[in-house]
Amino acid sequence: MSRATPPLCVLGLGLIGGSLLRAVGAGSSPAPVRFGWSPSEETRQAAADDGHDVVSTLDAALVRALREDALVVLAAPLTAFDALLQRIGQATPTIRLTDVASVKQPVAERVEALAPRTRYVGSHPMAGTAASGWAAGSADLFRNAAWVTSLTDETDVADWVPIADLALSVGARVVPADGAAHDAAVARISHLPHVLALALAQTGRLGGSLALSLAAGSFADGTRVAATRPALVRAMCEANSDALIDALDDALALLGVARASLASTGSLAKLTATGHQARSVFERRFDDLTPTVLDGVDLIEQLFAVGASGGYVTAVHGKGADLTIDALVPAPSA
Amino acid sequence: MSRATPPLCVLGLGLIGGSLLRAVGAGSSPAPVRFGWSPSEETRQAAADDGHDVVSTLDAALVRALREDALVVLAAPLTAFDALLQRIGQATPTIRLTDVASVKQPVAERVEALAPRTRYVGSHPMAGTAASGWAAGSADLFRNAAWVTSLTDETDVADWVPIADLALSVGARVVPADGAAHDAAVARISHLPHVLALALAQTGRLGGSLALSLAAGSFADGTRVAATRPALVRAMCEANSDALIDALDDALALLGVARASLASTGSLAKLTATGHQARSVFERRFDDLTPTVLDGVDLIEQLFAVGASGGYVTAVHGKGADLTIDALVPAPSA
Repeated sequence: MSRATPPLCVLGLGLIGGSLLRAVGAGSSPAPVRFGWSPSEETRQAAADDGHDVVSTLDAALVRALREDALVVLAAPLTAFDALLQRIGQATPTIRLTDVASVKQPVAERVEALAPRTRYVGSHPMAGTAASGWAAGSADLFRNAAWVTSLTDETDVADWVPIADLALSVGARVVPADGAAHDAAVARISHLPHVLALALAQTGRLGGSLALSLAAGSFADGTRVAATRPALVRAMCEANSDALIDALDDALALLGVARASLASTGSLAKLTATGHQARSVFERRFDDLTPTVLDGVDLIEQLFAVGASGGYVTAVHGKGADLTIDALVPAPSA
Repeated sequence: MSRATPPLCVLGLGLIGGSLLRAVGAGSSPAPVRFGWSPSEETRQAAADDGHDVVSTLDAALVRALREDALVVLAAPLTAFDALLQRIGQATPTIRLTDVASVKQPVAERVEALAPRTRYVGSHPMAGTAASGWAAGSADLFRNAAWVTSLTDETDVADWVPIADLALSVGARVVPADGAAHDAAVARISHLPHVLALALAQTGRLGGSLALSLAAGSFADGTRVAATRPALVRAMCEANSDALIDALDDALALLGVARASLASTGSLAKLTATGHQARSVFERRFDDLTPTVLDGVDLIEQLFAVGASGGYVTAVHGKGADLTIDALVPAPSA
């Protein structure tokens, strides 16, 4: 028996919000309540034309969310969060709330400042394409993607459950993590790859027409995400600049040591060995996960341990004192 | 009418040599003469079992190449070149010769030292996979790949023709370039991407299990070539260390400026703009090429100009004083 998805109110109907509205309806019967709002009349019309339940004003969306005890999802650009949070703090101060932004600590701080009584647990579904807007969305976008749920020691696990249910219902792996750990991790595996791809593209171009004419496989792969819209990359990286600088400094240190070794002894032995080994750890990161069940009174602590270990949540059962959580975690070393 | 492929003697039957032996036979009738040799008895047996003409000793291969006026292709690892060149210099000092190594200046210097009278024009077919050995080869490996032919001001165009014919017969784009220009270009678009991929993989791993569990698209693409065998990456990069250091310094400078900008003003505006623009120039590099015909007495100079402009050779006609060469080059700006 599949578990019911919570009623859903999606604010912002771009790639992620639009995909969410589509994904939550797909294949469940009875269809869960879900509705959306966009500040753009054109987007609202496009979503309505595709058969979705669209509300025409923010206030109407919030009033309805309150009435139906819906989970409100902030799926707008980060720059619009303050205005949305202000209105939520005034109109529906204790509503269930999540967001899907690619940084978690800065958002948590804004929620604390503008809507502190909301039952907020941040999200980051690690899915996306270079495209954007309602038309780019897809019901499959979240399948097998990581969906980070951003916890703190004070999180009430009852506030986390509807967000985990939502993420699981769209086929994602639920990864619990605190905001700072999330931000540090994505700086390394999402923001830094963009920065390196941009620098590689430009270094290739500095080689002139001959270099670009010879470029193929390794250059094409290494620069693929440099094709992403610059505004999107800036928004993502600049909102996480402290963590990105740490990651960049680690990369610069590795490259500096490799450069010095190449110049002094002509050898790349160390970087080729460690980098190859790291890629192979990445490729095998889910190979030895084994099922476990979380229950008891310290669920938040157990959830943190699952995420930190490289594991993820696969199902949620029951509620209140009967809540149990299925997860996959690394097998204990033999 | 397709032009005859020159008789071919391939020394070394790994990924590139083995693919060449297969590709040159494929689909032409009458099949051109081509035969190979490998120092490994197992490899010779595997190639013979697959129906290829295999010679059992290096000396027998060279004697036969001389008799049939074959083009000898050094397709062994760079570390084996000295021994092969020494024997060629002694046994068949004026033979037609090319190689397929990923650096061109160091090879040209060894040829000059050990087999200076050979009719040598270096090659670099820019094709490959992470796999290696006879079994990994494929007749399609060179289709649409760039095949650099490494010229000097002293090259006799008659020595270049059989190598261009060979490359064109296996479906490659022929890109003329001098050795230093080639080595500088591949440092940027092939060797640097490997170095950055290795550093990115290791920086991701330093983020621990959570970071690797969240890694997906951009990290997977950006680290793909870090899966290449370290020995192969070292051989390639270390043989081209001067040019690689130049490329790495350009990348480090771009990254250093981006880091400083992020730390001082919080902005990534410059890197995102230039990197995105560079990727887009790369994607459109062949969009506006237009046909041209080379003839006359300064063909080597004209070939250099084709390669430097980002163009390539598409066909060779006639010989001697009647030689003409078709190429694609950028259209003159409107």
